[in-house]
Amino acid sequence: MGEVSTPTAFTKGHGTRNDFVLVPALDGSLDLSADQVVALADRHGGIGGDGVIRVVPTAAATEDAVRAYAGEASWFMDYRNADGSVAEMCGNGTRVFAAYLRREGLETADEFSIATRTGVKTVRFVGDLIAVNLGSWRLADPETADAKGFDSLVHLPGIEPLSALSLDLGNPHTVAALPEAVDLAGLGLHLAPSVNPEPSHGTNVEFVRPLGPAHLAMRVYERGVGETLSCGTGACAAALATSFWAGELETSREWTVDVPGGRLRVRALPGQEVELAGPAVLVADGVTALV
Amino acid sequence: MGEVSTPTAFTKGHGTRNDFVLVPALDGSLDLSADQVVALADRHGGIGGDGVIRVVPTAAATEDAVRAYAGEASWFMDYRNADGSVAEMCGNGTRVFAAYLRREGLETADEFSIATRTGVKTVRFVGDLIAVNLGSWRLADPETADAKGFDSLVHLPGIEPLSALSLDLGNPHTVAALPEAVDLAGLGLHLAPSVNPEPSHGTNVEFVRPLGPAHLAMRVYERGVGETLSCGTGACAAALATSFWAGELETSREWTVDVPGGRLRVRALPGQEVELAGPAVLVADGVTALV
Repeated sequence: MGEVSTPTAFTKGHGTRNDFVLVPALDGSLDLSADQVVALADRHGGIGGDGVIRVVPTAAATEDAVRAYAGEASWFMDYRNADGSVAEMCGNGTRVFAAYLRREGLETADEFSIATRTGVKTVRFVGDLIAVNLGSWRLADPETADAKGFDSLVHLPGIEPLSALSLDLGNPHTVAALPEAVDLAGLGLHLAPSVNPEPSHGTNVEFVRPLGPAHLAMRVYERGVGETLSCGTGACAAALATSFWAGELETSREWTVDVPGGRLRVRALPGQEVELAGPAVLVADGVTALV
Repeated sequence: MGEVSTPTAFTKGHGTRNDFVLVPALDGSLDLSADQVVALADRHGGIGGDGVIRVVPTAAATEDAVRAYAGEASWFMDYRNADGSVAEMCGNGTRVFAAYLRREGLETADEFSIATRTGVKTVRFVGDLIAVNLGSWRLADPETADAKGFDSLVHLPGIEPLSALSLDLGNPHTVAALPEAVDLAGLGLHLAPSVNPEPSHGTNVEFVRPLGPAHLAMRVYERGVGETLSCGTGACAAALATSFWAGELETSREWTVDVPGGRLRVRALPGQEVELAGPAVLVADGVTALV
């Protein structure tokens, strides 16, 4: 009858309503199978989240590569998608992971490194926000982008095709600028937008509308998921693309990006890197017999 | 930064994937505002659930009526919808509530009473299942039902209107029988089905398909909510309507009703009452600073 007989600790948290179940494996011994991840992330039969993050000492990371490049990062963010698959990275997840390490006293400085599957990321606590250097980014097709400003078209039912620009932030993004006449809130994102030319491994599509100087509103359709309340790398792509169109990439001004789940801040860093800042909330702590 | 500084205890549980956040108010002092209920039930920013159940000693129930009729029921199930509104009852919720009382040692017998806003309900633990007498039910329009077997039509896009029967189980239900040619899994329940004649306060609509003797498959569109994974009173309505059509209401045989979230059992009791049995799982226990 669902006795919680062999409890495993967990923490639930979110960053701009992108939510996660954190499972501490502080001595590295607790692994999670794909089925266990699915059970934890299940919003009706489990705890519920967009993903599951195992908190692992880098020395105990099961991937050799992570141990090799971890360097001074003491903790590895073992991110899994809600469907049980292994994921490379999650921008919003890094903040929740960092907030957990700080609250638990596992990291005490205002700035520290964490290991992810896409390398070591530097995390900074700045007031109520957490900023993460997400590393390098690049235009998917720099020649076409430089010549035309855009490299593709995004198609949605009922509106004219939207000019768009594709960027690579470790994962692929295509950013479409909305003309004045089109209402962002009214866009029908129940079905995947089609992108032409079609990226071979799909792409995440961001729809952006300028709200003022260095201020955007954005909605995002995530590859293989659907519309989500927030996407950290998507917010970075949106700010970088808009900055590129404005010829302002070199100013390193901070952009504010409003997503359905809250507000994010994005800054282009020297050396073609990008920093994402935003809130992280640890909502609940508990134990479960699901794993 | 979301420090869990003033923790409130909670338990998450589900019955056939109808899920709830239980908040013990064992000394009766912890009340929940509508905003707090919304925050707890929020699937991205909170813990997440279809509803929130406060566990309250009947002597401390804020409703005079509950205290007056509670009798031997020691505990009051203060059920709230995820939108913060007060709800009368929830069939699947009663099992999760009962499982919690037993696990915590607040009730120790195999059979005990609980107080709800629709009166005192008797709960029985039977093997792995929990059976709850949901009390009396009636046909919404007995005269028409006796004459024709049906009292209304349910309309869904793309299929012929379905003959249906309306029942009152404290809340209103309209049960539509599917003809052989129509696939239950293929029904489009994204939009509310329309019912003719239209019930003045709306209705929950069940779509049923017989699978064998006393065995049904059902999908349900809940009034004001949409399609859900399970609805306890809906499963009762489905079994009672099918039993009525078969002229078997007097046999008190047990029906098996398969809902998307699992399997329920329904039995018509003497005196025009109905009993619902099914599983209850307590998934996690924790503390939160949300309330």
